[in-house]
Amino acid sequence: MTGRLYVVGLGPGDAALVTPQAAAALAQASDLYGYFPYVARVAERPGLTRHGSDNRAEIARARAALARAAEGGVVAVVSGGDPGVFAMASAVFEAVEQGPEAWRTLDIQVIPGISAMFAAAARIGAPLGADFAVISLSDNLKPWNLLLFRLAAAAAAGLVLALYNPISRARPWQLRAALKHLGTVLAPETPVVFASAVTRPDERIEYLSLTEATMATERADMRTLVFIGTAETRRIARAGAPDWLYAPRAVRVP
Amino acid sequence: MTGRLYVVGLGPGDAALVTPQAAAALAQASDLYGYFPYVARVAERPGLTRHGSDNRAEIARARAALARAAEGGVVAVVSGGDPGVFAMASAVFEAVEQGPEAWRTLDIQVIPGISAMFAAAARIGAPLGADFAVISLSDNLKPWNLLLFRLAAAAAAGLVLALYNPISRARPWQLRAALKHLGTVLAPETPVVFASAVTRPDERIEYLSLTEATMATERADMRTLVFIGTAETRRIARAGAPDWLYAPRAVRVP
Repeated sequence: MTGRLYVVGLGPGDAALVTPQAAAALAQASDLYGYFPYVARVAERPGLTRHGSDNRAEIARARAALARAAEGGVVAVVSGGDPGVFAMASAVFEAVEQGPEAWRTLDIQVIPGISAMFAAAARIGAPLGADFAVISLSDNLKPWNLLLFRLAAAAAAGLVLALYNPISRARPWQLRAALKHLGTVLAPETPVVFASAVTRPDERIEYLSLTEATMATERADMRTLVFIGTAETRRIARAGAPDWLYAPRAVRVP
Repeated sequence: MTGRLYVVGLGPGDAALVTPQAAAALAQASDLYGYFPYVARVAERPGLTRHGSDNRAEIARARAALARAAEGGVVAVVSGGDPGVFAMASAVFEAVEQGPEAWRTLDIQVIPGISAMFAAAARIGAPLGADFAVISLSDNLKPWNLLLFRLAAAAAAGLVLALYNPISRARPWQLRAALKHLGTVLAPETPVVFASAVTRPDERIEYLSLTEATMATERADMRTLVFIGTAETRRIARAGAPDWLYAPRAVRVP
């Protein structure tokens, strides 16, 4: 089987954060698969067929892409950020495992990307400079109580949290409930950042305390990444410019 | 104050994974600061002074770089991978907070990079496709017992683990002790991957069980990233090619 399938990370949005490796894979592709807005980020050109699909259609999209690669196409499945973080890489391998034996012989290459969380962290300072956990707040694919358990366990262990998929029209109350739950293990003044549409023209970054964030979850949306600091997190005040937030490398011992 | 300081992520090693934004910052720099092997990855050119330093000298290096920027230099502080993950961004902001007030007015920009963990994950499949924790195994900057507590808490909560700095000449026994401790909360057959020198000519990726890994920690070194899966992690066997490992998007409910 000669087909090839690239799972490509497009980064957070800024074209200057697309790697040369990702650009080279996109330049070779005959077929492009992905969620509509990500497919739209790749310029049209002769010889490239774009197959945009809906947000929730990951497995069907992965199967269509694999079938096309099995026919001999050079297929690129695109994700925003890094494809291995709550994105298409898992869906592709899930489809491979459940699919025809022949799909296992395909040349599948995952091409990493600048994740939304690293792009957002870079804007803020270095909030992820110490141990951290990365958790999706979507309860579509895991039980809500497990999610609460994970959040509290990670926060109680002193890990900084980066939360993906904090809120959507179909999941309007989860973020507030999650922050309230974190209030049982973290101090009210724990720093929280809502980083939205990072590197895009409408980028918006808000510094809040845990208490403030819990009361202001309507300021987050599908394109928001939420950071929750620890007792160690430091904030550097600046005159006339946004503060810097960072995680010190060392943990203070009482 | 007109000086500028970029904290630049060089990615895991492959030049095709250096972003155009990182390349542009490096092209502007008058002075380059970093650990010797990272500085060596940036080509010499007229007008660029390279200031390599030792591995453990992060704060001193950050201060020297900030002082140079305060004199009006265009400074690039380079890290492998992403500068916000156990790398120079935290050290720079720590030095800013402790340094002269004037350093707060510097134009400091963190430029994200492809982290070693995402490059390694891409090679393996999608081991980080679900909730995960990123933990440095160095006990230079935090108490060993806190580290064990974090590892067990994250593993018991069902998070995939990505372990940085697993082993070094000065810290030879920590990885085995950490894996043994994880054996108290994870099954012996839990998948472990040692991913070394990813994207470099001497790249080496080894699939082990937790039991095997505990007995084979000498196969890891300073350039190894260790992944530890969960009960959910899936492995796709392939004939004549390395297996794929991935974290399914959904958590099975018993």
